[in-house]
Amino acid sequence: MKNVPYRLYLTEEQMPKQWYNLRADMKEQPDPMLNPATLKPICKEELYPIFCRELAHQELDAETRYVDIPEEIRQMYRVYRPSPLIRAYNLEKELGTPAKIYYKFEGNNTSGSHKLNSAIAQAYYAKKEGMKGLTTETGAGQWGTALSEACAYFNLPLTVFMVKASYEQKPYRKAVMQTFGAEVIASPSNQTQVGRAILANDPNTTGSLGCAISEAIERAVSSDGYRYVLGSVLNQVLLHQSIIGLESKTAMELLDEYPDIIIGCAGGGSNLGGLIAPFMQDKLLGKANPYFIAVEPASCPSMTRGRYAYDYCDTGKVTPMARMYTLGSGFIPSANHAGGLRYHGMSPIVSKLYHDGYLDEARAVEQTKVFEAATLFSRVETILPAPESSHAIRVAIDEALKCKETGEQKTILFGLTGTGYFDMTAYAAYHEHRMTDYIPTDEDLQRGFDALPNVPGAQE
Amino acid sequence: MKNVPYRLYLTEEQMPKQWYNLRADMKEQPDPMLNPATLKPICKEELYPIFCRELAHQELDAETRYVDIPEEIRQMYRVYRPSPLIRAYNLEKELGTPAKIYYKFEGNNTSGSHKLNSAIAQAYYAKKEGMKGLTTETGAGQWGTALSEACAYFNLPLTVFMVKASYEQKPYRKAVMQTFGAEVIASPSNQTQVGRAILANDPNTTGSLGCAISEAIERAVSSDGYRYVLGSVLNQVLLHQSIIGLESKTAMELLDEYPDIIIGCAGGGSNLGGLIAPFMQDKLLGKANPYFIAVEPASCPSMTRGRYAYDYCDTGKVTPMARMYTLGSGFIPSANHAGGLRYHGMSPIVSKLYHDGYLDEARAVEQTKVFEAATLFSRVETILPAPESSHAIRVAIDEALKCKETGEQKTILFGLTGTGYFDMTAYAAYHEHRMTDYIPTDEDLQRGFDALPNVPGAQE
Repeated sequence: MKNVPYRLYLTEEQMPKQWYNLRADMKEQPDPMLNPATLKPICKEELYPIFCRELAHQELDAETRYVDIPEEIRQMYRVYRPSPLIRAYNLEKELGTPAKIYYKFEGNNTSGSHKLNSAIAQAYYAKKEGMKGLTTETGAGQWGTALSEACAYFNLPLTVFMVKASYEQKPYRKAVMQTFGAEVIASPSNQTQVGRAILANDPNTTGSLGCAISEAIERAVSSDGYRYVLGSVLNQVLLHQSIIGLESKTAMELLDEYPDIIIGCAGGGSNLGGLIAPFMQDKLLGKANPYFIAVEPASCPSMTRGRYAYDYCDTGKVTPMARMYTLGSGFIPSANHAGGLRYHGMSPIVSKLYHDGYLDEARAVEQTKVFEAATLFSRVETILPAPESSHAIRVAIDEALKCKETGEQKTILFGLTGTGYFDMTAYAAYHEHRMTDYIPTDEDLQRGFDALPNVPGAQE
Repeated sequence: MKNVPYRLYLTEEQMPKQWYNLRADMKEQPDPMLNPATLKPICKEELYPIFCRELAHQELDAETRYVDIPEEIRQMYRVYRPSPLIRAYNLEKELGTPAKIYYKFEGNNTSGSHKLNSAIAQAYYAKKEGMKGLTTETGAGQWGTALSEACAYFNLPLTVFMVKASYEQKPYRKAVMQTFGAEVIASPSNQTQVGRAILANDPNTTGSLGCAISEAIERAVSSDGYRYVLGSVLNQVLLHQSIIGLESKTAMELLDEYPDIIIGCAGGGSNLGGLIAPFMQDKLLGKANPYFIAVEPASCPSMTRGRYAYDYCDTGKVTPMARMYTLGSGFIPSANHAGGLRYHGMSPIVSKLYHDGYLDEARAVEQTKVFEAATLFSRVETILPAPESSHAIRVAIDEALKCKETGEQKTILFGLTGTGYFDMTAYAAYHEHRMTDYIPTDEDLQRGFDALPNVPGAQE
């Protein structure tokens, strides 16, 4: 094996020029999105009022294996990419593990996360197609910040519906979006029909991603020349995020390395799906057999305890239905849940891979254990990780400690999706021993399952 | 000229293995630090109660041209370095300038600034010499965060006296330091004699760096096994920060480039002194003649309007006296001053170079103009700059616009010292048109000059 530097940056020549579309190599396709009125697969034309045309095409295109990254997008990628592949020598030493730990760090940009990779693509296509503006939702704020950044660059107006809990707890996130020129509205708001209905039902709700999505879609379809964009879950997002995995794989090849275990945190699946994509291709084609672990919060356990079923992507039920692991579109994590990964469902691609056994394992972890890992990591690796990313750190540490017991020198790769500068309230709660864990009861979850729509033959 | 990438990262082999001590090539040395009681040059032994031995040695060593960077420090540098040299293609395009703009970006670490470069060195030597802990001060919080990070890594207790205005305005900064295990105290505090005296004199003071320094020193010298560390001004700090300039120079050589203009923001001089060091060597040795510009806030104009005089480094007058450009050790910028660069004096090395004409120009800029530049920069370059760094951006933009007028294709290099994630209050004030400028009157400044100590023959 070659001498491995702490940080490996690809050169511009080594950076990917195409995204990789994992669906092209899947043995079975994810079940199609359905029109909730007809229960028939949705077609491109039905998506046009919501998404711009190229993105609607990408959403439904399961055939094209490699998609050229437009030069305008590659130019913007070069401003903050490549992201480094980092060998966690200090963490390995701290743990005393024989395992080799690598992480792909996507936090070196102002949005502080991998979300920018898809934000740039979505803003670019909207601008190219002459749109007047975009709407979106944001939870912890990473996606909203990323899209604000991208829209500022392409000079495109943006309205962000921000989950009320985050809007109130993260004023700095809001200020960053405003610096980039975005309009930021706390959700649920009284500016949309769906927001008013949700508020009428529960005036004290702190909001949810599903609710903010409903509001953003309503605003987009009712505003001339506006389209809606989403930062995760969608097939198009996983396509754009494949750059994470493609860069990682190239970097590991340069080091004569290949991961035995690949770990990603999983909220809507954007990072996980992007990170694993080219390695999953190897598995699907029988070239390699890495072990994939998706990590989710015990307080929002869509993969480990959810149903694989058709569900709405939003609380207001204005979206098409997707078949995915879901806790029900009305699910809201308990109030003590800090950080992101709070979406009720999971990317249909990731769900299908998990359901069919290609994605080997989903693991739920409790947040105090997550912040314990985050604190240890920050002290030895000097990066203050986002709570989301720290789910992957937790499991990477646990796997490395298993190697310490068994003596195996496994190669572990995980995705460090972003930084936690805007999550200091949660860090402070952890350090002051005010953070608690909450695992939903079976009864909690049953309420969500009872509300699932009825799609004959598809609800497991 | 070679094809220039957006971001150039050195390999580990290309990274500097030695710091560069600019004093070894200066024609005339900065005037020595004086013992205020005797007005005689201070010796190493007098510094030992304050600094650990190796750092006291570095402080006074004007002969050693290159200092080996200990392997333990290089190991930690590799965790977050090299920092990229970035070609600002997008900014150039936005400005329509023929100038080529490069910046060295030091914000890709949790402390969010270049301060970590010296923090690691100072914590390392303290640990190596068996110290029990460290004390320091912090203003905007970059230095305190950096030192907290370094002390967490070397497992060394740390107490940070944080300027009260920042302590109250930047709770997240405080939380980051606490995450790294540091004790953070608002300054002035009632925990030191000097703090109590300052509070008795002005109970409503929002504090100053000079005051926090006094408290940190008092705490260090009165605690067994503790030493004091400072993030700027000192010769040792400029030595450690020379890594910025050394990496920049190597990167530019790889691109067959050499800067015509080099721009750095100037608070205490740590970034500026580090960035310019190897280029200044070229100038001192007659090998090249780049034009150096130091940029400071109009509200704290130590170089453009200060006296070149002996002064105390702190408000409580417990430090040795240094000859430097100073506004008087009691100077506090007006309350509307946002961000950092609020120190009353300037590094003696930088001061001497400026006084003798090697550092070509000091320029004061108003903060609304600084935030205007910061906002433009963030939108096109996708990095949200710290207010400190944005002083350099302002002047880089102004110089690039001059090139647009004259048609000159000058090569501009500036230091982008850090990120502004913790400065969103100031950004919000700017965007909501609540930010104002304040230029001190001559009378304001005269009060500071009247309080300068009397050192015959040295006060200009």
